[in-house]
Amino acid sequence: MADSEALSSHAGDPVAVEALLQAVFGIVVDEAIQKGTNASEKVCEWKEPEELKQLLDLELRSQGESQEKILEHCRAVIHYSVKTGHPRFFNQLFSGLDPHALAGRIITESLNTSQYTYEIAPVFVLMEEEVLSKLRALVGWSSGDGIFCPGGSISNMYAVNLARYQRYPDCKQRGLRTLPPLALFTSKECHYSIQKGAAFLGLGTDSVRVVKADERGRMVPEDLERQISMAEAEGAVPFLVSATSGTTVLGAFDPLEAIADVCQRHGLWLHVDAAWGGSVLLSQTHRHLLDGIQRADSVAWNPHKLLAAGLQCSALLLQDTSNLLKRCHGSQASYLFQQDKFYDVELDTGDKVVQCGRRVDCLKLWLMWKAQGSQGLERRIDQAFALARYLVEEMKKREGFELVMEPEFVNVCFWFVPPSLRGKQDSPDYHKRLSKVAPVLKERMVKEGSMMIGYQPHGTRANFFRVVVANPALTCADIDFLLNELERLGQDL
Amino acid sequence: MADSEALSSHAGDPVAVEALLQAVFGIVVDEAIQKGTNASEKVCEWKEPEELKQLLDLELRSQGESQEKILEHCRAVIHYSVKTGHPRFFNQLFSGLDPHALAGRIITESLNTSQYTYEIAPVFVLMEEEVLSKLRALVGWSSGDGIFCPGGSISNMYAVNLARYQRYPDCKQRGLRTLPPLALFTSKECHYSIQKGAAFLGLGTDSVRVVKADERGRMVPEDLERQISMAEAEGAVPFLVSATSGTTVLGAFDPLEAIADVCQRHGLWLHVDAAWGGSVLLSQTHRHLLDGIQRADSVAWNPHKLLAAGLQCSALLLQDTSNLLKRCHGSQASYLFQQDKFYDVELDTGDKVVQCGRRVDCLKLWLMWKAQGSQGLERRIDQAFALARYLVEEMKKREGFELVMEPEFVNVCFWFVPPSLRGKQDSPDYHKRLSKVAPVLKERMVKEGSMMIGYQPHGTRANFFRVVVANPALTCADIDFLLNELERLGQDL
Repeated sequence: MADSEALSSHAGDPVAVEALLQAVFGIVVDEAIQKGTNASEKVCEWKEPEELKQLLDLELRSQGESQEKILEHCRAVIHYSVKTGHPRFFNQLFSGLDPHALAGRIITESLNTSQYTYEIAPVFVLMEEEVLSKLRALVGWSSGDGIFCPGGSISNMYAVNLARYQRYPDCKQRGLRTLPPLALFTSKECHYSIQKGAAFLGLGTDSVRVVKADERGRMVPEDLERQISMAEAEGAVPFLVSATSGTTVLGAFDPLEAIADVCQRHGLWLHVDAAWGGSVLLSQTHRHLLDGIQRADSVAWNPHKLLAAGLQCSALLLQDTSNLLKRCHGSQASYLFQQDKFYDVELDTGDKVVQCGRRVDCLKLWLMWKAQGSQGLERRIDQAFALARYLVEEMKKREGFELVMEPEFVNVCFWFVPPSLRGKQDSPDYHKRLSKVAPVLKERMVKEGSMMIGYQPHGTRANFFRVVVANPALTCADIDFLLNELERLGQDL
Repeated sequence: MADSEALSSHAGDPVAVEALLQAVFGIVVDEAIQKGTNASEKVCEWKEPEELKQLLDLELRSQGESQEKILEHCRAVIHYSVKTGHPRFFNQLFSGLDPHALAGRIITESLNTSQYTYEIAPVFVLMEEEVLSKLRALVGWSSGDGIFCPGGSISNMYAVNLARYQRYPDCKQRGLRTLPPLALFTSKECHYSIQKGAAFLGLGTDSVRVVKADERGRMVPEDLERQISMAEAEGAVPFLVSATSGTTVLGAFDPLEAIADVCQRHGLWLHVDAAWGGSVLLSQTHRHLLDGIQRADSVAWNPHKLLAAGLQCSALLLQDTSNLLKRCHGSQASYLFQQDKFYDVELDTGDKVVQCGRRVDCLKLWLMWKAQGSQGLERRIDQAFALARYLVEEMKKREGFELVMEPEFVNVCFWFVPPSLRGKQDSPDYHKRLSKVAPVLKERMVKEGSMMIGYQPHGTRANFFRVVVANPALTCADIDFLLNELERLGQDL
């Protein structure tokens, strides 16, 4: 029954709403944006989990809290969070804070709509198509299809699912059981999402055939050819090759022309995981690294990485013009995609995806692109390459920095060899002792909050640092700081 | 080579950054928040796609545009977007604009991190666990696991993948080919993501056995039992039942106790798709609709729907305490989940998911919950039920409104029978003519911008409207408007 207490609205009045949001926005500007990108502030404020739980007062209770308390929570959340836009954050393949992209994200959140129909997302349906067509043009395609996905891993999964559907359309209905064993090929340097995707899609990780990479981390096309023959000899049906443009650790670019030749010879779908390296297509100087990408069937490209569009912004691009996305993923839900709508229902994108609701991921990239122009974005890419080169050259001038290899991208991989290990390369425990250096330095830098750099072991190589030079606000001074700080933190080791 | 032009930073100075963001935030407050939730403003500003393209100037060019232009674009994007927080937006299962949730979303965007490691998301790793544990407690579990997913469709897919992995751990490596044919069960009223998920996961849509629903849209447990026997007789192996708490169109709740009995008898994984209805668990008055949910193995629950947390906020909850999520989805990428980190790497959530980067989706819900308390959220749920009841009772007082059925939730499904069709139920073309009413009214309301209500055909039923009463700011006056407006728009039909 309609109960009068329940029927009164509990939403805030407009003045209070505005006051709250203005107060929060003030905190965001001061703490997250100004302090969060200021090199003289900490990049992180390390706390042990138990202590942090206490500091944050995470518990959700029956009673609501006062506005004063809420604003305190907002400050604490920002204070104890890592500042990924900070010029000393070199830890991931994303960093930096582009103000136009952030503006686009705030507008997106305020509009809170789903991308699935023109009806409720007219602006974003048209905008997504414009952005995708611009990205496709950079790949080298004058037509095609595409969609923004929740991250590169899912973009890669889409590519695998589309390739198998194109070869075996029946599998949508009948599943994999009736098919021969399928094989897909990727190099040992590929992103782990290829393995995860194969498992999730029901193919199993065994269906992923691992192709050799050369000493620089690039797929060896001759070994690809060999792996295809082997798979066929074992009775499997090769259907897809996933090449990588910009590998996660080493930043390597697979030789796409040679790989495309192999795919063409064997009639295989060529997917390029350019989640990391795709943005290099904006640079006239460096786009040769992706020569041959126009021969791909599909490309995954994450502008939230090198272009700093903000998480998430991940495009899957297709050369296909046969409506493959909709045929593969569509289910024609009558309550959402009514065919008797008063507008052209071909505009509705919902049946291109396996999701239902889908976030708007185009506005942040569009607005940044509008503000920067392609030329501005190109300058950023060129700047990142130049700063990575500066880092490498400066390292060579200092003792104790040993490059894993000359980088061809903006991943700079190196060992910091502390004083006690210098000149000891031949001692039997060198490798073991070197492995322990990066974790110790990492702990020190995080606990001081002075910078963040990722490290990892890699094949037989001992733990090394990977500096990612991507933040568009970086300067040579930040690079100098990085080198000095490693020396300072490691001087007693 | 390091080139001096490229080495100079192109990022804006802090003052300009702040000025831009303040200007954009002002536009957001005025246009999206104040006008966007003001009942005397339009809920949408309909334009044909070609005209809208011109108005938006979507093209991305080589040169960047001036700040003045950028701000114009921001205004236009908001102006021509649908206002999903508007009190006349009844079109989807999400609506309303909660200021604390929006504040949480703006902070999330300003911090722009990924949820995968404690290292770069210390606050959010702990907060996600607190929020998930609170949601689990409402389900009735004192322990368990869970994760926020990019939408309910993917949460449902996760459940299916976990259930098959639990039964056949080998399938992660070896795929589905070596398994017997699998069968999963859901009612004909279920969300279309179950079908989409079955195709994506390689099971094929044929693996989905459709169970009958009763006249109110609830799964018939006796037919579930029958379908299981039939599948077994055909040589398939039943492994999962997906029940629905709050179906998309009718808002029906499957009888979970009876379904859990069937699952228990046959040793099947019980998944409850409570994406829409899960939030009812907050209401002492109405939570009986989900009685039995504590017997589920997994629950999908989208607080971005009835709780208005903002897209996306979708939790997958698990009763499992055996680390099934990590075992099923993990790949132990050495560059991201180093085992020699200086903190407890069990905190890292990245290997629980098939994504790599993962958005922070917990803060918006946490902040809203902190501000409202469980009691405030409960009042909202009760208010939505009460207003839906008010709508139903008011309809009964008016001519021309015919309920599809008495609702048990906040989906109110009805036909508007226009004057020319009243009393003509027995004429041979009644059904056909009635089907055309909703599309015409929808076109009129959208083109006037006065309100938005979804419609759909359903089984043999002609197109009917589905009003979703969910926006926490709704009042009886908004409901009265809805009824008056339908009468006004349809008076000449």
